[in-house]
Amino acid sequence: MKSANSYIHRTARVGKGTTLGKYCVIESGAVIGKNCTLGSHVIIHSESQTGNNVRIADGAVIGKQPARAKGSIFQDKDRPQLPPAVIGANCTIGAQAVVYAGCAISDDVFVADLATLRENVTIGDSTIVGRNVTVENFTTVGSKCKLETNCYITAYSTIEDFCFIAPMVTTTNDNYLGRTEERFKHFKGVTVRRGGRIGAGAVILPGIEIGADAVVGAGAVVTKDVPARTVVVGVPARHYGETPREQLLENQGWN
Amino acid sequence: MKSANSYIHRTARVGKGTTLGKYCVIESGAVIGKNCTLGSHVIIHSESQTGNNVRIADGAVIGKQPARAKGSIFQDKDRPQLPPAVIGANCTIGAQAVVYAGCAISDDVFVADLATLRENVTIGDSTIVGRNVTVENFTTVGSKCKLETNCYITAYSTIEDFCFIAPMVTTTNDNYLGRTEERFKHFKGVTVRRGGRIGAGAVILPGIEIGADAVVGAGAVVTKDVPARTVVVGVPARHYGETPREQLLENQGWN
Amino acid sequence: MKSANSYIHRTARVGKGTTLGKYCVIESGAVIGKNCTLGSHVIIHSESQTGNNVRIADGAVIGKQPARAKGSIFQDKDRPQLPPAVIGANCTIGAQAVVYAGCAISDDVFVADLATLRENVTIGDSTIVGRNVTVENFTTVGSKCKLETNCYITAYSTIEDFCFIAPMVTTTNDNYLGRTEERFKHFKGVTVRRGGRIGAGAVILPGIEIGADAVVGAGAVVTKDVPARTVVVGVPARHYGETPREQLLENQGWN
Repeated sequence: MKSANSYIHRTARVGKGTTLGKYCVIESGAVIGKNCTLGSHVIIHSESQTGNNVRIADGAVIGKQPARAKGSIFQDKDRPQLPPAVIGANCTIGAQAVVYAGCAISDDVFVADLATLRENVTIGDSTIVGRNVTVENFTTVGSKCKLETNCYITAYSTIEDFCFIAPMVTTTNDNYLGRTEERFKHFKGVTVRRGGRIGAGAVILPGIEIGADAVVGAGAVVTKDVPARTVVVGVPARHYGETPREQLLENQGWN
Repeated sequence: MKSANSYIHRTARVGKGTTLGKYCVIESGAVIGKNCTLGSHVIIHSESQTGNNVRIADGAVIGKQPARAKGSIFQDKDRPQLPPAVIGANCTIGAQAVVYAGCAISDDVFVADLATLRENVTIGDSTIVGRNVTVENFTTVGSKCKLETNCYITAYSTIEDFCFIAPMVTTTNDNYLGRTEERFKHFKGVTVRRGGRIGAGAVILPGIEIGADAVVGAGAVVTKDVPARTVVVGVPARHYGETPREQLLENQGWN
Repeated sequence: MKSANSYIHRTARVGKGTTLGKYCVIESGAVIGKNCTLGSHVIIHSESQTGNNVRIADGAVIGKQPARAKGSIFQDKDRPQLPPAVIGANCTIGAQAVVYAGCAISDDVFVADLATLRENVTIGDSTIVGRNVTVENFTTVGSKCKLETNCYITAYSTIEDFCFIAPMVTTTNDNYLGRTEERFKHFKGVTVRRGGRIGAGAVILPGIEIGADAVVGAGAVVTKDVPARTVVVGVPARHYGETPREQLLENQGWN
């Protein structure tokens, strides 16, 4: 494939039926599937791969290599060599989204504008990653989740299948706020079990587990684990009741 | 108009006195007014229109067509055909902002860097949309509002004239957090009446109405309607007092 | 230096050993140091300067001139003439970050993807500015600080050395929420003294001072000054205890 207004490295492979906007950059060894649609100004870094029928909107960056701050807690020893970014079939990647090298995205995933998916992140099939969502490194997100606009998923977290994380939710992984050597032993993100849900603007403290089908109310500050199928609200979050039967995952007909 | 470093479709029209940076993309049928200033890497999608004296900064995307996630609650039946994005005279659009097709922006509006205005959104004249603000689809924002940095305006909301939404405010529209079929009947964003104001980091629950000239304190979680000219604070938000006389809209000399 | 796929103004100077991606724009009078690495689609506006060994990732914009909204409280009288953006040696600037003209960044600073640093902002050496962080105009940030993902630092703030601002923290500068003429006399951001720390999702009211080595708990809403070496939590924030000895700055072995 040739394009007068884009740069495609001679070792890159672009599948049949795929179209590009203007001023795209496709670097060496990249592999783009068939019938994909790339907007303008899209950048596909070396070796990155996509499945078929993928849409990548204007200005998105795929396969960015991480750059470390001198004072970052993550240093190069943590990443002897990152695998390429891999994007499954039928995915959509939004405008100006950034997907790092070492990120693996399953099929049918929707990543909205301006979202960032870091290295060593896995996203399960059919999950929706909202606008400007950040999923930090070493985090696993399951299938059929909804991570809503602007929510922040910290490093070392686990989000299982069918979870719902509302807009502006904040998760954390460092109870020591950047002090002591001790803290390096305790870094721990959050765990949201299958079907767990977190309301808008809630803040979840480090290492907390939200149980299966549990609900955290909007604006809550969660300082203790939340048992399965229970609802917590408030600052700090306290037990409020049981998850309504009709809202349980098993009653959605999603099989 | 010709530019050696930009792509302008032959059916696009660019007004007299308008200047472009480098590597811009102006697609078919787009109409750019007179004396506009476009930065570099600006993308104007097909049929989009701007008035005169509009400034569009580097990397902004105008007229993006929405792409639906398979599991999105909004499907194509909701949008038989979107009108083009329309931007009024004397507007400023910030760097890397995204304005969707079907968004109508009145004159003298300021949209800061990285803001996103979705389809079926209307913005009244002289409103300021801050950096990284999201205004979701089917939402109407009035004139002379200030939507401050990072605030999130959910779908199906109404913001009347002269409203002030502080940084990091979160609004919501789904009390069912993504569960039950029932929820589709109840989706409802927030309503902020003329001159209503919401403080920094506050969270507003679905369907809530903030009355005219009412004030929500910073960090409040609003679970009930707020009457006109009253102030609420706390989690959950409780009555705190009356809006100070000198802060009432009628006493600002704004006519 | 010449590049077939980038635009470099003839008066710009690019240091030896510096490499560019594709479709970069380097405007008149810009000075890029030696051994720098620019990604693709990077924009360096007129007169901007960088030291040596600087990395600037895809789509970043350096030296953007501010554009005022008609109703902005900052008008042109406040900026007779902005100096160029200056970026010190060994800095990293993330993808789609925006650094304004009149911003001065010291050596060894790390600015992550999508962050925005406004005009009249100073960043001390070795500070980390996280993803999508906003530092508003007329704000000074010290050395060796960590401003984490999505935090919002309002205009007219002072952040001293070694401060830690967690993800999604909101700071504010206007107790009058945009009303009264009186407010113009009282605009005041926050002050965080040396080693002060603010937990995730906290909201800090206008003019508040967080003392040296003080700690604000996650989700707190801070309405009063926080004395040095004390911890506050809750809504509104109340005294909780002393900063743990082992977390004091003097006990970190950071010299």
